[in-house]
Amino acid sequence: MTSETPKESTDTPLVTRQDHDGYVTLILSNPARRNALSSAMMSALHDAFDEIASSPDIRCVILAADGPVFCAGHDLKEMGCISDCEQHARLFAQCSQLMMRIVTLPQPVIARVRGMATAAGCQLVASCDLAVAAATAKFATPGVNIGLFCSTPMVALSRNIARKHAMRMLLTGDPVPAQMAFSMGLVSDVVDDADLEPATDALAAGIAARSGMTVRLGKQAFYKQLEMPLSDAYDYASGVMTTNMQKHDAREGIGAFVEKRHPEWRHE
Amino acid sequence: MTSETPKESTDTPLVTRQDHDGYVTLILSNPARRNALSSAMMSALHDAFDEIASSPDIRCVILAADGPVFCAGHDLKEMGCISDCEQHARLFAQCSQLMMRIVTLPQPVIARVRGMATAAGCQLVASCDLAVAAATAKFATPGVNIGLFCSTPMVALSRNIARKHAMRMLLTGDPVPAQMAFSMGLVSDVVDDADLEPATDALAAGIAARSGMTVRLGKQAFYKQLEMPLSDAYDYASGVMTTNMQKHDAREGIGAFVEKRHPEWRHE
Amino acid sequence: MTSETPKESTDTPLVTRQDHDGYVTLILSNPARRNALSSAMMSALHDAFDEIASSPDIRCVILAADGPVFCAGHDLKEMGCISDCEQHARLFAQCSQLMMRIVTLPQPVIARVRGMATAAGCQLVASCDLAVAAATAKFATPGVNIGLFCSTPMVALSRNIARKHAMRMLLTGDPVPAQMAFSMGLVSDVVDDADLEPATDALAAGIAARSGMTVRLGKQAFYKQLEMPLSDAYDYASGVMTTNMQKHDAREGIGAFVEKRHPEWRHE
Repeated sequence: MTSETPKESTDTPLVTRQDHDGYVTLILSNPARRNALSSAMMSALHDAFDEIASSPDIRCVILAADGPVFCAGHDLKEMGCISDCEQHARLFAQCSQLMMRIVTLPQPVIARVRGMATAAGCQLVASCDLAVAAATAKFATPGVNIGLFCSTPMVALSRNIARKHAMRMLLTGDPVPAQMAFSMGLVSDVVDDADLEPATDALAAGIAARSGMTVRLGKQAFYKQLEMPLSDAYDYASGVMTTNMQKHDAREGIGAFVEKRHPEWRHE
Repeated sequence: MTSETPKESTDTPLVTRQDHDGYVTLILSNPARRNALSSAMMSALHDAFDEIASSPDIRCVILAADGPVFCAGHDLKEMGCISDCEQHARLFAQCSQLMMRIVTLPQPVIARVRGMATAAGCQLVASCDLAVAAATAKFATPGVNIGLFCSTPMVALSRNIARKHAMRMLLTGDPVPAQMAFSMGLVSDVVDDADLEPATDALAAGIAARSGMTVRLGKQAFYKQLEMPLSDAYDYASGVMTTNMQKHDAREGIGAFVEKRHPEWRHE
Repeated sequence: MTSETPKESTDTPLVTRQDHDGYVTLILSNPARRNALSSAMMSALHDAFDEIASSPDIRCVILAADGPVFCAGHDLKEMGCISDCEQHARLFAQCSQLMMRIVTLPQPVIARVRGMATAAGCQLVASCDLAVAAATAKFATPGVNIGLFCSTPMVALSRNIARKHAMRMLLTGDPVPAQMAFSMGLVSDVVDDADLEPATDALAAGIAARSGMTVRLGKQAFYKQLEMPLSDAYDYASGVMTTNMQKHDAREGIGAFVEKRHPEWRHE
């Protein structure tokens, strides 16, 4: 949450994109506003993800941020200026759609977190498939401090960590240090602050070096099967593996493994 | 579970209530019987929660216990005297309703645990929204030792911790120390024994100092959205946030944050 | 996953069974092939479990392995020789049925893990009710390395550990050491390598010393209630406890507890 004076100019993009070999880094680029999720910022992010979704050459995404704060959540100044119920509803729906966009994106998304990730900013981390945190990063859902419970952030949060840990964050707003966030399951990696960028790049490059087809099939299946009863999940996942086995890259990968050589992916 | 000789007198209430500023402490007050959940004890607790549910000035509840044992679960002497199947069914249903009463209570409930919490006593802790454990506290579901599997306790337990950790507790009955209970997610805080009361009071007072409306909305939404598929959970939670935004306390909280002053809650 | 030259002979059984007092140990006995889950190995395991399911005198099962690798997952040589889609589908269905057989087995199954458990071998561990790991054991789902995402292993894995930890294993294939697997919830115990066999035997003997009826009722109810909404789960589990209370062993167990003597189980 942020209430700083806006300094954004129409010249500076809210989200910056860096292209690497097989993956891209999206950077929240409004540090003066603590990278708040204004309506404009959410649009810019959503558009960037849409473009990535239709780019088969991109096989992984890093979601990062400029400045000392990863993301402060909703733009409270913007939100405070709205009195109309429908406009609020639109804003929250836009935010939820952004989070769902990450989950439904074909490629894995890795949050790269330095500094504080709060409220919808914490939700952003929780919604990513992986998250690498600098050792000094912190996570909080402090909506309770301003009378606005972090109800949408908790959807993602409570699907990442044990419910009493989630409840503690939601009812107190207390920040959780990176190491604890790792133990709880909110982030998948913690590294020294100096290693944040190289460690995240290495993780993304490693995923990008695998078959894009395989990773896409896997990510999509992961979230689908999670919401099924065990027996249905097995029926579904067995079907996914059978489909996977008919693809070029699985035959190539198994062949390479048996012949002890490097596989040549076609990402199909 | 306890089989000690009953020492309860009709003069002493089974549950004691202490009122503080914005929160109450309910104390299981039958230490001679290890605070067993006899039918009378469950009734007393349920009544106390019902009264709290309709008290808007109470914004948080601590559930504590007198004596060296937090709660030993069902009263085995009482249970052993019953041979009638319907009476057993009534007793287990009463216990489940008590646990559901905690989950559906508008206010957050914090278990304050010193000593052993076993069987339905462990379930009581698992059913609370938060739990502060003294460092020497222990948790167990030892029904397997008396031929009566902790089947209702496991409903709450398995929704708090990883399933292999839950299965280990259920199949062995082994007690789990507080620090491990914290790592697993069964409790939200562990503190030195000497700090148990002040730490729990501080946690409750902190929650009571927030907008009661906000906290109630949040707690209710938490458990509802947990049982929904992701996309439905977002639709629902976005609606909750929109409702929350129309309330006095959200407008006041955001205004105070933007103006850098303390908010004045009306708890509505 | 393994691609070693097959050395299995028709003389040597793929699964060895050792009978103990009240429990059995099933041993994957094809170390030359890293105990790969070939179709023949899965059949042998499934048959062994079917036989155990109808043996009321067996009250617990240890699933162990010969050699330095616990289980390397599917037999890639076998799988690579198949080009027919239906045959692949049958193989994956057979594997899922084997995992479901463990979950639906009346008796608890404890994985005893030394060395690497990878892909469907890791799934085998995740599908057991409990798992004891040697301190040097490791767990991985490296299908992504061969273009074949561990989609069925992830069904079990994602029901054991936090989703970001699961995603990290699935997207990187990196092995997870035993202690981390314990923290995440993938195994229920970690012990020194030298203690693996005695510690697992002690755990199994402890479960076998309890009422078999009680443990069966409890295991079955555990997985059923996990897939229900909270309120339905309580209705169901209250019914299970009422049924449990009518059984000989519950009356005996409670009587023995009240009278401070050892219970005499009839396992009914």
